[in-house]
Amino acid sequence: MRIDIITVLPELIRSPFEASILKRAIAKGLVEVHMHNLRDYSTNKHKNVDDYQFGGGAGMVMSIEPIAACIEKLQSERKYDEVIYMTPDGETLNQKMANSMSMLKNIIILCGHYKGVDQRVRDLFITKEISIGDYVLSGGELGAAVLCDSIIRLIPGVLSNETSALTDSFQDNLLSPPIYTRPAEYKGHKVPDVLLSGNFAEIEKWRENMAYEHTKTRRPDLLEE
Amino acid sequence: MRIDIITVLPELIRSPFEASILKRAIAKGLVEVHMHNLRDYSTNKHKNVDDYQFGGGAGMVMSIEPIAACIEKLQSERKYDEVIYMTPDGETLNQKMANSMSMLKNIIILCGHYKGVDQRVRDLFITKEISIGDYVLSGGELGAAVLCDSIIRLIPGVLSNETSALTDSFQDNLLSPPIYTRPAEYKGHKVPDVLLSGNFAEIEKWRENMAYEHTKTRRPDLLEE
Repeated sequence: MRIDIITVLPELIRSPFEASILKRAIAKGLVEVHMHNLRDYSTNKHKNVDDYQFGGGAGMVMSIEPIAACIEKLQSERKYDEVIYMTPDGETLNQKMANSMSMLKNIIILCGHYKGVDQRVRDLFITKEISIGDYVLSGGELGAAVLCDSIIRLIPGVLSNETSALTDSFQDNLLSPPIYTRPAEYKGHKVPDVLLSGNFAEIEKWRENMAYEHTKTRRPDLLEE
Repeated sequence: MRIDIITVLPELIRSPFEASILKRAIAKGLVEVHMHNLRDYSTNKHKNVDDYQFGGGAGMVMSIEPIAACIEKLQSERKYDEVIYMTPDGETLNQKMANSMSMLKNIIILCGHYKGVDQRVRDLFITKEISIGDYVLSGGELGAAVLCDSIIRLIPGVLSNETSALTDSFQDNLLSPPIYTRPAEYKGHKVPDVLLSGNFAEIEKWRENMAYEHTKTRRPDLLEE
């Protein structure tokens, strides 16, 4: 898989790709992540990529020309499955979307910043608009990092133990059951007996039951799906 | 405001705090962000902070002792409004939560990693569990960065133009209207005439109407609230 991220602030999301699971996935050659600094595609000498809003109002808007130049250059080099724009009014990311996107070959992710991009960018170039949740961030960069993390960890071979991702929350519309590790007793607070019993059928039953109860209490909406 | 982040991977989220709005908020003294490497609180010589699950199963669990040591040290130094755990089964972050959290004084954010933390950490220390959305990430670090960004940008004085945050999506349960900047015409695609009219009453009406229509099409659930 190849991911091209277009941003005015590549330095903002450098570290998430240089640590832990994403770093190892890149090192193993399972995914390529390329950052493109939008300023390199500016056509004026001040390297501007934004301008005032037509009609007035606070906040700057990202101009269409540098974005068009960058996307058109990338599209001339290879075919992309999706050109994604990170925006709070996009489709809300969920695990099902992450699952299906983990099977794509090439994607572009455009990060908005300031008030966002000129509407014509969205009309002419974007094939998918994604939000990571109902809140506003300083820019699309952290959203892009979140999207990449949610996708990349699902690519076969990225997680050392493939069953690990399959037992995560949401994969079966259930939240995870409680988990415990040593010590068996911490200041009088004990691990549930069943987990120490060695009876794996009972443990499995307990976990299923706890996952169901936990989901019913916290997120009954997931059970309705 | 003071934010203490507890993590096994402080390097993963260093860059978001060293760029753009978060960097400037920290430089202006409007917020302090302290990273605590959980390994510094490990009690064994290998600096381990995780262990196998009781009852078997894939994935490691973060042990209670190092987390307890770190939280108790911080709590001995000052009072915290919330001790937050980032987890996919927590309360889903939204703009209203970000608004109210931006008024807190001191918070601790614990990032889970691997399969998560020993349940007793949640039972004994955590006052609030937050999810940034219905998807699984490699760890709580990116979630913590997202939470911090959503909160910090709302602290008065952080954004250069305070009205800018107030006109963002979600602040009035409406998505933003389309925005445009120069050129007025791009390859035959024109900016709507009203935005070039100079008639601010008409522009305001158009924007309200577009915001409402856009929300009705994309997120009718927001209008029901």
